[in-house]
Amino acid sequence: MTGTDFASLPAPPYFAVVFSSQRREGDQAAYDEASARMLALAAAQPGYLGVESARGADGFGITVSYWASEQAIQGWRRHAEHTLARERGRRDWYRHFEVRVARVERAYGGAEGSA
Amino acid sequence: MTGTDFASLPAPPYFAVVFSSQRREGDQAAYDEASARMLALAAAQPGYLGVESARGADGFGITVSYWASEQAIQGWRRHAEHTLARERGRRDWYRHFEVRVARVERAYGGAEGSA
Repeated sequence: MTGTDFASLPAPPYFAVVFSSQRREGDQAAYDEASARMLALAAAQPGYLGVESARGADGFGITVSYWASEQAIQGWRRHAEHTLARERGRRDWYRHFEVRVARVERAYGGAEGSA
Repeated sequence: MTGTDFASLPAPPYFAVVFSSQRREGDQAAYDEASARMLALAAAQPGYLGVESARGADGFGITVSYWASEQAIQGWRRHAEHTLARERGRRDWYRHFEVRVARVERAYGGAEGSA
């Protein structure tokens, strides 16, 4: 995962897929390569809006991808290479994960001297 | 932030507040203390369902809190001590942050030998 940047998103409504996961140990190079590949593939999908991701030293991570519509999420879910990567994730990379699909209703940001 | 655990949530629909932030450097002890205090306060609010949080070594983090209703989110937002902590966050702790409030429509999980 790179994803150290904030996603630039349009005004709501749009959709979010919140993916929380606990990594298993090991296999880091293969995982990093597959993660980068999935981020690049996702970014090329119709309706993709952006992604943000963080993972702590304890291996617990949250990745939120943003999409223009439910159809865009379904399209990415059916993507053949993504489907294979999800199967590998279940088997090799994640001890556990949770997915929540949500409709973003409002959004705001701040800081950088905004106090 | 502790938050290395998955939140145990009811069946959707419910609401999520996705808080993405880039930490400024320094002030870690005060930040950790305030974070723990806010997590404890949030957990005592009506309509609180759970929280998940991850922050990488680069200081970029995502915290997702889950709530039973929009009213529960508004109640927590108006909480006096939380309001003060948000002001301190804007001023001292975060270089930048983004908040997205979303309605979770569906959810699923897996792994741990589920392949």
